[in-house]
Amino acid sequence: MAEKTLLSLRSLMAVHSPPLDALVVPSEDYHQSEYVSKRDKRRAFVSGFTGSAGLALITPSEALLWTDGRYFLQAEQQLGSQWKLMRMGEDPSVDIWMADNLPKVAAIGVDPWCVSVDTAQKWERTFAKKQQKLIQTTKNLVDEVWTNRPPPELNPVVVHPLEFAGRSVGDKLKDLREKFLDERTRAIILTALDEVAWLYNIRGADVSYCPVVHAYAIVTFGSAFFYVDGRKLSAEVISYLEKNGVEVRDYGAVNTDVLLLASNKLTSSDLYNDKDNSEHANSSNLYNDKDNSGMIMSDDSAEESANDLIWVDPGACCFALYSKLNMDKVLLQPSPLALAKALKNPVEMEGLKNAHIRDGAAVVQYLAWLDNKMQEIYGASGYFLESDIDKKHQLKARKLTEVSVSDKLEEFRASKEHFRGLSFPTISSVGPNGAVIHYSPEAETCAELDPNSMYLFDSGAQYLDGTTDITRTVHFGKPTAHEKASYSAVLKGHIGLGNAIFPNGTTGHVLDILARLPLWKDGLDYRHGTGHGIGSFLNVHEGPHQISFRPAARNVPLQPSMTVTDEPGYYEDGKFGIRLENVLIVKEADTKFNFGDKGYLQFEHITWAPYQNKLIDVSLLVPEEIKWLNNYHSRCREILAPYLNTSEIEWLRKATEPIAA
Amino acid sequence: MAEKTLLSLRSLMAVHSPPLDALVVPSEDYHQSEYVSKRDKRRAFVSGFTGSAGLALITPSEALLWTDGRYFLQAEQQLGSQWKLMRMGEDPSVDIWMADNLPKVAAIGVDPWCVSVDTAQKWERTFAKKQQKLIQTTKNLVDEVWTNRPPPELNPVVVHPLEFAGRSVGDKLKDLREKFLDERTRAIILTALDEVAWLYNIRGADVSYCPVVHAYAIVTFGSAFFYVDGRKLSAEVISYLEKNGVEVRDYGAVNTDVLLLASNKLTSSDLYNDKDNSEHANSSNLYNDKDNSGMIMSDDSAEESANDLIWVDPGACCFALYSKLNMDKVLLQPSPLALAKALKNPVEMEGLKNAHIRDGAAVVQYLAWLDNKMQEIYGASGYFLESDIDKKHQLKARKLTEVSVSDKLEEFRASKEHFRGLSFPTISSVGPNGAVIHYSPEAETCAELDPNSMYLFDSGAQYLDGTTDITRTVHFGKPTAHEKASYSAVLKGHIGLGNAIFPNGTTGHVLDILARLPLWKDGLDYRHGTGHGIGSFLNVHEGPHQISFRPAARNVPLQPSMTVTDEPGYYEDGKFGIRLENVLIVKEADTKFNFGDKGYLQFEHITWAPYQNKLIDVSLLVPEEIKWLNNYHSRCREILAPYLNTSEIEWLRKATEPIAA
Repeated sequence: MAEKTLLSLRSLMAVHSPPLDALVVPSEDYHQSEYVSKRDKRRAFVSGFTGSAGLALITPSEALLWTDGRYFLQAEQQLGSQWKLMRMGEDPSVDIWMADNLPKVAAIGVDPWCVSVDTAQKWERTFAKKQQKLIQTTKNLVDEVWTNRPPPELNPVVVHPLEFAGRSVGDKLKDLREKFLDERTRAIILTALDEVAWLYNIRGADVSYCPVVHAYAIVTFGSAFFYVDGRKLSAEVISYLEKNGVEVRDYGAVNTDVLLLASNKLTSSDLYNDKDNSEHANSSNLYNDKDNSGMIMSDDSAEESANDLIWVDPGACCFALYSKLNMDKVLLQPSPLALAKALKNPVEMEGLKNAHIRDGAAVVQYLAWLDNKMQEIYGASGYFLESDIDKKHQLKARKLTEVSVSDKLEEFRASKEHFRGLSFPTISSVGPNGAVIHYSPEAETCAELDPNSMYLFDSGAQYLDGTTDITRTVHFGKPTAHEKASYSAVLKGHIGLGNAIFPNGTTGHVLDILARLPLWKDGLDYRHGTGHGIGSFLNVHEGPHQISFRPAARNVPLQPSMTVTDEPGYYEDGKFGIRLENVLIVKEADTKFNFGDKGYLQFEHITWAPYQNKLIDVSLLVPEEIKWLNNYHSRCREILAPYLNTSEIEWLRKATEPIAA
Repeated sequence: MAEKTLLSLRSLMAVHSPPLDALVVPSEDYHQSEYVSKRDKRRAFVSGFTGSAGLALITPSEALLWTDGRYFLQAEQQLGSQWKLMRMGEDPSVDIWMADNLPKVAAIGVDPWCVSVDTAQKWERTFAKKQQKLIQTTKNLVDEVWTNRPPPELNPVVVHPLEFAGRSVGDKLKDLREKFLDERTRAIILTALDEVAWLYNIRGADVSYCPVVHAYAIVTFGSAFFYVDGRKLSAEVISYLEKNGVEVRDYGAVNTDVLLLASNKLTSSDLYNDKDNSEHANSSNLYNDKDNSGMIMSDDSAEESANDLIWVDPGACCFALYSKLNMDKVLLQPSPLALAKALKNPVEMEGLKNAHIRDGAAVVQYLAWLDNKMQEIYGASGYFLESDIDKKHQLKARKLTEVSVSDKLEEFRASKEHFRGLSFPTISSVGPNGAVIHYSPEAETCAELDPNSMYLFDSGAQYLDGTTDITRTVHFGKPTAHEKASYSAVLKGHIGLGNAIFPNGTTGHVLDILARLPLWKDGLDYRHGTGHGIGSFLNVHEGPHQISFRPAARNVPLQPSMTVTDEPGYYEDGKFGIRLENVLIVKEADTKFNFGDKGYLQFEHITWAPYQNKLIDVSLLVPEEIKWLNNYHSRCREILAPYLNTSEIEWLRKATEPIAA
């Protein structure tokens, strides 16, 4: 079947005008999302590789798939024989490969809705060195050959109430429009699904794991448009949007509205503007304090006319929409909402902390349950002991599999208040599967739990008051000295990063080494970033900051009230994987001095679940690390107890017994 | 007098064609050198500020000086009342300031020989946002008003023999020409003084502290030109250059030769080329293995014509020379010699290690002598004790000053084999002067040694076999708890960086945090980079790598056989300064594993001199740090003993007694 798809695509490429020498199939949807809905999994459909990140390239004679280190193993397993795996960081990047391997005069097709301005422009620069051209296909060629493509989602949009959102749409619009004045812009085109949901305080269910709606937004000084399939909106939601000064348009209308916006003719309906002025509504900065639409005043007409740019985030906006604008009148700059969304307000912060406590309780319940089952079914020595396995148990019929146990974990989470689903596909991986960094077990093929192997689970949930993400790695039998040493190195990195104190202005790139240093000492490392922001009942991965060994193009420093994960790991192909992950919040540090009046920052852990003392080689820890660990464990006990039953509390007490050097 | 200079300059600016709204006076000479000769200290002449880094800007009504954090205090002290200090990193950069503060239509003058391509282009981009223009003055206006400007240097050029250089000119030229083929270039213009000296294995004395010659070089496939004042060349040196295929031209001829090079008419004399071909000598790739001129063969004429670019290092080359070229035919890329020079060959490495041992012995002799004198003259308790001062000694006539003791240090160094002078002005600073990061004491005004204060000395020497750079901070009386805690934090950072193990590809920017982390913990920091490369009997500061909190434009990873300093510090304005500095070499690490087959690297200290145990608060050190310190001290004893007399050996034994937790 995969072969047939390639044949069909190659036929379409040949009859395309101009004929295409290559077709790029990115992972992203029309909103440059990391996680996409089923009908948008075009790259997975053509290549068979289901990981969240990757890019397929099809030429008349070759089919190649680029992905990053998290997915090398998985891609090797999933790609058919026609496909060649290109390892990011090791092999040349896709644009360099094309420039070097395609004919000197080549037409390279891509659906311009599926590629960002940044990416398209980078490719165009590379191609320009030869006579190669990036061709925007008018249709998506994959959709043409995808006969049983899932239908569009029609999930209802819901209002995200102020008690969880913490800031009104009117206030958010006002903040945004104040940024317009700083940057000489008159409008912004918002394409990132989480930014639209955050700005309008709405949530949806169009994409698995992400409570977002397929929608665009355009905000001008006078209007705020919301482009969405109207069938998803109840009367209540429509009324809510109206009250907040948000005008609903059809999802597809963004296509033509962007043209109107470019020529200064995008007009609001007459809800918020004087009818006589409606033709210039988009540039009218009339202040209207009778409603809560967040408009701001600028009665300096000189200043008004100076605001003539349209703000487009080159990393988030698709090339298709950008191409409709007058390039001279575009401000290509990261969306101000990325940072605004990352800086959690006090209500969001409180919600996130609470959500993580309930989530931690679910994780402890799961670990206690799993510990019990592992002993009962497999005769494992369990979470606390290292004796050899009692073989006689091993033939019992009731088996635990990667999927069956992760279902149990979901059950514990689902019992918690405000639960709204998982925040990403649970990684539940035994032994060698743990080395597949973004492993996703399938019920039919997944492995059985094994008391002789490491077990890694990386999972999270969506709660109305916050999104969670946690990873723990455990062993229910007798870990090897090497497994313990590796676990200890990962733990030391995890603690080292989490305990850092650093001046304002420090980026995650600068801090990244703290998580790797204990591994590097032994010549070990991991092929993924160390931390990502996390949403408030939104995407589990969000920017604009990150903790990564790669210097980011947008080097956004860590700032108080940001969330960020701390998740170093170590993976041994074919053997095991280790990862430890907590969510941290950035806050001001109360240092003894304040050199340079810079202000210093530190982290606060908001994730609560025990590390496994059995996997720690205490001789590798310094006193400060031991002290931190014992203190963290003691706080786990205090914080989680109200959510646990007596036997769970007792299990947690044993799991968090202080260790000594 | 400073006021008169400003008046004269402003008059010249007014009568300039076009009249200048601002005149930029950079620190750099015609070779973008960090250290410049006396006659090139134009910025110091106009502003009075004598630090090594800074930029002066003169407008009809203002005079501003930009410098970096190392020099804030010094600049405040030296600048006259007409001058305003602009703090780099805090105030807007000079181009932004000019764009924002000068008239919308403005002419900004600069001597294009004193500014790099990178800098000039950056300014031009900033100015282009308004109608401001960068004007290349045809004369240097400062030279016009500098009546008693020192005359040109006429110091002899000497050959740097192969026993110290380790690689012949012919081999170096061959390596360089191989790079031409990779980059489609037919020539390179070399303007950095240390690159010219390194390439031709010559040294000079035109710039204090740097054994370089004011010279340019142009290398083509067939020729190697050396632009230098012929009066500096002995018959022997001329013959050496001839034998090595290097053709001498007058220093000023580079001006016209660059034009000839651009139009493909730069011809070699007939020394190395067939006369019939002489008109195309520069593009003839004739292989000639009868001489040792390092020419390489390329008999593929298609490939030859493809090599049509001229290589210019935009950070090193002056705007004046670049402006003479056809921009379409220029490769603007860092000079390949920067990296080639940084990767020390085995002979250079051996020389550097030996030079550092002799230098370390001089430092120990100095410390032992100073310890003795401090007790004798001031009644200090000395290097090893912390008792209160015996006041009766304090009135003795023989005083020790910052300058008199640094002269003694130079005396100890001068007694060592291969000594050729200091590598930079010795920083010898007592108490508050230690907080002036690049303090340079003057005999008339400098401070007296003080047993109640910290004493910091940062110094180095030029030896035929290597350049050295070391900093130690000591106290001969009773340091405060805060001084000890600060010293210990600096030491922890110094050890943390020095002990790092990291994969190939890691930049100094990534490692920088290791030196700062123990300071950040207390809200402390320092306003300078952490490490720089060091030459082989060349400049004490060299790139292309560095260890810095600033992400470098040229992010060159650390590589085996590079040298780099490890010099964190802490400075308290008006009180004291602490800095500890060793030179490290990068080498392969023998790690237990080799994840990702990347290969791991580590550092080896080549500097040998004791830290002061008295200044260490042992409770702040972890066992690994104590172990490292004791081991380093034990190696100091072994390595330096052959160069010390009995009492010095005894002093060193006491200074390096093991400490316990």
